[in-house]
Amino acid sequence: MSLLIKNGNIITATDNYIGDIYIEDGIIKEIGINLNKDSYKTIDAKGKIVIPGGIDVHTHLNLDVGIAVANDDFYTGTIAAACGGTTTIVDHMGFGPKGCNLKHQVDVYHEYAKEKAVIDYSFHGVIQHINDDILNEMESIVNNEGIPSFKVYLTYDYKLEDEEVLKVLKRLKELGGITTVHCENHGSIKFLKDYYINNNLKSPKYHPLSRPVEVEGEAVNRMINLAKIVDDAPLYIVHLSSEIGLNYIKTAHEKGENVYAETCPQYLVLDDSKYEIENNEGLKYIMSPPLRKQRDIDALWKGINDGHIKTIATDHCPFAFNKDKQLGKDDFTKCPNGAPGIEERIPLIFSEGVMKNRISINKFVEVCCTNPAKIFGMYPKKGTIQVGSDGDITIIDPNIEKILKAEELHSNVDYTPYEGIKVKGYPIYTILRGEIIAKDNNFIGKKGYGEFIKRKSKI
Amino acid sequence: MSLLIKNGNIITATDNYIGDIYIEDGIIKEIGINLNKDSYKTIDAKGKIVIPGGIDVHTHLNLDVGIAVANDDFYTGTIAAACGGTTTIVDHMGFGPKGCNLKHQVDVYHEYAKEKAVIDYSFHGVIQHINDDILNEMESIVNNEGIPSFKVYLTYDYKLEDEEVLKVLKRLKELGGITTVHCENHGSIKFLKDYYINNNLKSPKYHPLSRPVEVEGEAVNRMINLAKIVDDAPLYIVHLSSEIGLNYIKTAHEKGENVYAETCPQYLVLDDSKYEIENNEGLKYIMSPPLRKQRDIDALWKGINDGHIKTIATDHCPFAFNKDKQLGKDDFTKCPNGAPGIEERIPLIFSEGVMKNRISINKFVEVCCTNPAKIFGMYPKKGTIQVGSDGDITIIDPNIEKILKAEELHSNVDYTPYEGIKVKGYPIYTILRGEIIAKDNNFIGKKGYGEFIKRKSKI
Amino acid sequence: MSLLIKNGNIITATDNYIGDIYIEDGIIKEIGINLNKDSYKTIDAKGKIVIPGGIDVHTHLNLDVGIAVANDDFYTGTIAAACGGTTTIVDHMGFGPKGCNLKHQVDVYHEYAKEKAVIDYSFHGVIQHINDDILNEMESIVNNEGIPSFKVYLTYDYKLEDEEVLKVLKRLKELGGITTVHCENHGSIKFLKDYYINNNLKSPKYHPLSRPVEVEGEAVNRMINLAKIVDDAPLYIVHLSSEIGLNYIKTAHEKGENVYAETCPQYLVLDDSKYEIENNEGLKYIMSPPLRKQRDIDALWKGINDGHIKTIATDHCPFAFNKDKQLGKDDFTKCPNGAPGIEERIPLIFSEGVMKNRISINKFVEVCCTNPAKIFGMYPKKGTIQVGSDGDITIIDPNIEKILKAEELHSNVDYTPYEGIKVKGYPIYTILRGEIIAKDNNFIGKKGYGEFIKRKSKI
Amino acid sequence: MSLLIKNGNIITATDNYIGDIYIEDGIIKEIGINLNKDSYKTIDAKGKIVIPGGIDVHTHLNLDVGIAVANDDFYTGTIAAACGGTTTIVDHMGFGPKGCNLKHQVDVYHEYAKEKAVIDYSFHGVIQHINDDILNEMESIVNNEGIPSFKVYLTYDYKLEDEEVLKVLKRLKELGGITTVHCENHGSIKFLKDYYINNNLKSPKYHPLSRPVEVEGEAVNRMINLAKIVDDAPLYIVHLSSEIGLNYIKTAHEKGENVYAETCPQYLVLDDSKYEIENNEGLKYIMSPPLRKQRDIDALWKGINDGHIKTIATDHCPFAFNKDKQLGKDDFTKCPNGAPGIEERIPLIFSEGVMKNRISINKFVEVCCTNPAKIFGMYPKKGTIQVGSDGDITIIDPNIEKILKAEELHSNVDYTPYEGIKVKGYPIYTILRGEIIAKDNNFIGKKGYGEFIKRKSKI
Repeated sequence: MSLLIKNGNIITATDNYIGDIYIEDGIIKEIGINLNKDSYKTIDAKGKIVIPGGIDVHTHLNLDVGIAVANDDFYTGTIAAACGGTTTIVDHMGFGPKGCNLKHQVDVYHEYAKEKAVIDYSFHGVIQHINDDILNEMESIVNNEGIPSFKVYLTYDYKLEDEEVLKVLKRLKELGGITTVHCENHGSIKFLKDYYINNNLKSPKYHPLSRPVEVEGEAVNRMINLAKIVDDAPLYIVHLSSEIGLNYIKTAHEKGENVYAETCPQYLVLDDSKYEIENNEGLKYIMSPPLRKQRDIDALWKGINDGHIKTIATDHCPFAFNKDKQLGKDDFTKCPNGAPGIEERIPLIFSEGVMKNRISINKFVEVCCTNPAKIFGMYPKKGTIQVGSDGDITIIDPNIEKILKAEELHSNVDYTPYEGIKVKGYPIYTILRGEIIAKDNNFIGKKGYGEFIKRKSKI
Repeated sequence: MSLLIKNGNIITATDNYIGDIYIEDGIIKEIGINLNKDSYKTIDAKGKIVIPGGIDVHTHLNLDVGIAVANDDFYTGTIAAACGGTTTIVDHMGFGPKGCNLKHQVDVYHEYAKEKAVIDYSFHGVIQHINDDILNEMESIVNNEGIPSFKVYLTYDYKLEDEEVLKVLKRLKELGGITTVHCENHGSIKFLKDYYINNNLKSPKYHPLSRPVEVEGEAVNRMINLAKIVDDAPLYIVHLSSEIGLNYIKTAHEKGENVYAETCPQYLVLDDSKYEIENNEGLKYIMSPPLRKQRDIDALWKGINDGHIKTIATDHCPFAFNKDKQLGKDDFTKCPNGAPGIEERIPLIFSEGVMKNRISINKFVEVCCTNPAKIFGMYPKKGTIQVGSDGDITIIDPNIEKILKAEELHSNVDYTPYEGIKVKGYPIYTILRGEIIAKDNNFIGKKGYGEFIKRKSKI
Repeated sequence: MSLLIKNGNIITATDNYIGDIYIEDGIIKEIGINLNKDSYKTIDAKGKIVIPGGIDVHTHLNLDVGIAVANDDFYTGTIAAACGGTTTIVDHMGFGPKGCNLKHQVDVYHEYAKEKAVIDYSFHGVIQHINDDILNEMESIVNNEGIPSFKVYLTYDYKLEDEEVLKVLKRLKELGGITTVHCENHGSIKFLKDYYINNNLKSPKYHPLSRPVEVEGEAVNRMINLAKIVDDAPLYIVHLSSEIGLNYIKTAHEKGENVYAETCPQYLVLDDSKYEIENNEGLKYIMSPPLRKQRDIDALWKGINDGHIKTIATDHCPFAFNKDKQLGKDDFTKCPNGAPGIEERIPLIFSEGVMKNRISINKFVEVCCTNPAKIFGMYPKKGTIQVGSDGDITIIDPNIEKILKAEELHSNVDYTPYEGIKVKGYPIYTILRGEIIAKDNNFIGKKGYGEFIKRKSKI
Repeated sequence: MSLLIKNGNIITATDNYIGDIYIEDGIIKEIGINLNKDSYKTIDAKGKIVIPGGIDVHTHLNLDVGIAVANDDFYTGTIAAACGGTTTIVDHMGFGPKGCNLKHQVDVYHEYAKEKAVIDYSFHGVIQHINDDILNEMESIVNNEGIPSFKVYLTYDYKLEDEEVLKVLKRLKELGGITTVHCENHGSIKFLKDYYINNNLKSPKYHPLSRPVEVEGEAVNRMINLAKIVDDAPLYIVHLSSEIGLNYIKTAHEKGENVYAETCPQYLVLDDSKYEIENNEGLKYIMSPPLRKQRDIDALWKGINDGHIKTIATDHCPFAFNKDKQLGKDDFTKCPNGAPGIEERIPLIFSEGVMKNRISINKFVEVCCTNPAKIFGMYPKKGTIQVGSDGDITIIDPNIEKILKAEELHSNVDYTPYEGIKVKGYPIYTILRGEIIAKDNNFIGKKGYGEFIKRKSKI
């Protein structure tokens, strides 16, 4: 089985050139000029943008948050990803039964994904409690299971205390892994939610007021200091949304600290005026952290350009607007948090970022493909176009103009937060290990074709 | 009763001029040139430095920390203060019995102080738990008791959670009061102490390693964000010791936030090499936060000059080296935290600050006298030399050279952390409401002459 | 001759108290409570604000700019000052005949001022060329003439080259003097003026475009570096107008450098929309640097509060709108640069600063009275209210509301840039060395009563 | 003609993978795994580092500085470059006869280079005076001659005034070109040189004192402001040496400005203690700007990592120590400025940067190869390893250890500033357009094989 992609404008995180790519047995075997190959299939990519398959390192498929379950499983969710130009995800596991060991959720998630996923996948572990058994078990999860990243939460039911976070940071540093963190100050959210609810201020517009930027900023900076205390343990901040948080990260970088930040399309293209739309439309945008203001948006784009933000992922977590989200219609705190985006990411960032000259096309590849793979131990198998890498390729036609509409997207959910946004440029081919799995907005791959990626630790 | 001070170099936070000061009935009645007054007493201050009486807003007299009790009560402690040029203290109350109301400790402290204190005094309240009763009671403590400042701890047994801190900040802002905070990250200290003890690293030199600068920095910045969240509530950081903490405060000031910082002489003249002195001498310096490095010392002096640090207080908390401190001889975590300094503050800061050209003489008065009075609601009764103010005056002879020795100091404790330091300039008169209470290093006042100061809130 | 001011709210740069001030022989002899004095005159200041007489260290009386002469001489100009609450000016000398020595202009200015000035005055020297004779002569100007400050220009005809500026900076540092600088990049102004004129863009609105903020910022930072090169020579930046310039000064302060900055009321209350007013009204605001944007205004107020800006002076330089200013009606580059403000300063800053809570009343006194005196060697004779100081007092009634109108002001010019601005609070008494020279907006002093102040160098 | 490089560790600015490179007709035609090609030559690169040929965008071959001529011409100089792993230079033209047009020096330099250069080359134009003819002529130099970059000097005989610099910046922005600048404050250097010489302080150690860091910092910041004034014209700062200069560049980047910075190996590995070596050895290091202190060195490495410094070039300008440099033996100001380094750059930065973990191997390629090509209009022909690019490859053996010695280097000069420095890793092959031109430290190419590169403007 082989595939030849001819004459595309091949883009990596640093390069931009015209060439042919030959993929055989799922691997890029040759890149050349006018390659003369007998290949099973040939794609003429002249005038098209050829990038590494997109990597989304923050998704929540199958996620059960108690009051609702995210509407995409590993089949529907990865189909949506594929149609949007993404060939690999790293899903954040949900919590298991109280007191369960780490392997428990690994097994659960393998069960979720296998025979379903249509693109390649891995999981981030999650720490829901800490004791010596858990700390010991982390070694086998990192080394045997190929999962060298874990998430800790500073808020929600399973939030960890600072002392516990230090134990995780230290242990993962020893193991060559990395700690990813949801940074929000728990006490402040509780204080503010109580305040608004007690004052009968319950509509969606109070959601962002209950989680102001300082809630995120405080937690980001706390994590930076905790990581520094345990010998500058590696730290990855998920879904950064605010200028204040970014500024703390900048300061850490100026001191040479080991901090990576991720942001998401919603924080780059939407603002908090969304919460004020009539008819409870604001419920669609209830996610944590919430949407911010234009000055935060501007700061985040600049943070990407300056290298302080390393990745763009989605935090894809789709709840049905007409069902799940309505739980919050009389009280924003009852609304399940999350929104879809797995399919929209690549088109949105290409259009809003590259086509609007906010970022270069190389930076686009860097934050959507290459850095995610490097930070999470999948490079050079994933994340670039070079020989020896997996034949994961997304081809974008820069001339397609399209208006984003939920009805044309593939996630198993009844809305998109980006409804009505016009994008310029859209994926026309998504290729995973040499197989074309999506074409012209249609999924043409096979259920279960996706493979689990054993990721590498830094040691 | 009246007192005339002739021809002194009178210094305020902004001025420097020669004049006579006439005090009658405890109040400064006139300031003039060649005042012609029949006064009961006259002091010739020609060639001497005449400043407002020193104000120390951070002392711990009578403090019971469970394993030991601070060796100075309101009699011995205020005698030491008087001999060192200080005429007013604001003492931080200790914790009362579990669950006690706020008034309980107010009563206890009035009992401690009355008929004992030889200088004027007030108390900072302390919050050891939070509920609606406590929040309600705060109003009468602020308005009726004249105590508009409370302290919260982010570490130790009675540490408050972030949500509780927010309630205090908000309530005190409503009442026109101010929240003072001991900023150290509790979880980090616990993690690091366990680490050192478990690895049998128990000598005093592990004390600073168990509380690195990030422990303070994190907590300072957390408080800044929490205060911002409740409408920029006023915040006072006690005993700031580190450059990193200072930098967070600078950033807050750049954003126009309402944060005051205090440092102490020990963080300005001593460094962490003290912990390595032989024979467990390091125990003398076990205090929290610990002594730091030269770069922190340099940063703090600069912070004073730049206006980011507003006050210098002592955190005076004397434990006997040959008794109390020996509790820590085999395990630094068992050593009661604290050190004396109430008498050394004015001479040290005058000598190390003014005489060594690190700060101007006006800045010296500002941070040791005027700002403490202004921030804590005692101005203009205290903290300056103007007509209408209390006749609280300290006269310094700038030509005295002296080596600091515990045996010549008046605190009821067997050591000084500043033993052997040579100072230039020393108080020769301490005058409280027109009475000379100390002269040439001797206390000549009366037990119980000190009065409680009902302080004002900002409303 | 004596004067007693009773029960005023006396304000210094740090204090705020109620008291009586007794002035005899032009000197403050006593400050007291209920002073019982036989005085020639008594003023009841109850409920009024009593501040040190205002000091304006940047005026241009009699200034001949070739195409026009500033319309105020030392008589009309100082009457206006007196009516606005200012008791001392330091006037910037104009240039003399080409090649003249320093004494030449000193003599000219003494001639201008004597028997005319109604308030006290000094001069800043000006350097129009540099050679060994000039460098030698500086010593006697500083020490014998009592003029320890000189101005250099980085633009205009007599601009100095960087090498020449270094010679001035070094020499004045040796002599204990200070270099004041007009900071604008000459080449940029020339380039931009040529550009606009060549493109027939000649209306007043092109004036600010020909001197963008970088023109000032560049020159400010250049001076900071030049001063650093000659051993951190003292440097005083006149009429700072921009955030960018302020930021360079902040950075210098963070490095501990010896830089003072002055701003002016026009940069604090007016913005560049003035240049677009119809009928060539924009000519009224043609001054250099030009008016800026709101973000600069906000930054300057903050710079005052943060201590990076030390003084507010006026750059008072009145040209008649209906005559002199019309020279620029067809070409903004032909318009004489400058505007009046000597009388408006104290009312404007009191109203816009203190009454609008942008600065404290102590800060107002600090920047309008105390710092100018300290920086330029007139303190404590001038700039504060303490015994021994000159009896220079301005009394403000905080309840007067008034609309600023040229017709009610005293400068010999036909407009005020502040026409129509409503102020709250206005000087009701201006007292110079114990004499009331203005009362309720009327000049009641004597021509020639003003004295030349021999200023002190730092050595 | 063809060349196959097998199994190398291929490094680009972002990637790191193993593969084969096939070069035909001077162009990279294929990159693959186990390429099966009939090639004229094959290199086994297993275990070796394969990078794009080095690009040095700051050299001074044939440079005549009046008192001496740089000892390398385009033959000896490019041989040295080739032996050090560099395949392309962009030489800074020297000044021509007074008043000459731009084409004059282009012709002179083509004459210098043709039939001599053994590697590919281009030239930066130089502006020695400005008038309308020169501004007009720039268009043909940029567009017809393929030289879209010019240098201006802010010091030396042909320094431009600020107004002239603005004209260059603006013109080059219009033409899609870029202005490169030697940033030092002329007046300060003159002032300080005069000072030291007049005080008979003439040994090499006064060279750095006559050009302190503020001399560079001031000029860097001036240029940043001038470029901003003409619509953010592109600006390239050559040979940045100081932390202060870097900080100004950082501030510009934070504001989103269009500034590129270059540093050189000498500023990254040598410090100013060199000027104090006995026997006038300090003359070897007389260059401008001079060597700095360790804190500057540390800042520059960090600046490279943070992306504020984009390129490392050499400023190669070799004068014979035993002849030319001796002109300065009694007076440092008489010594011709400059030092060799064209051959040492790649080995030094690989060893001191990559092997000592100061920068990643991708960053090494980025600053030594890719960015120089991109900034100066040679990419993707030069600066990367991708199909379609020139077959310019340097192969480094990371295991070679070697001590740098002048006698083993190829520049026509009698010393190296890096004598005695031990490096780990050394180029073993240098390949230009498919031809091996150096191998194991020997030049094996042909005189005159180098080609002139017509560079592209941004338009």
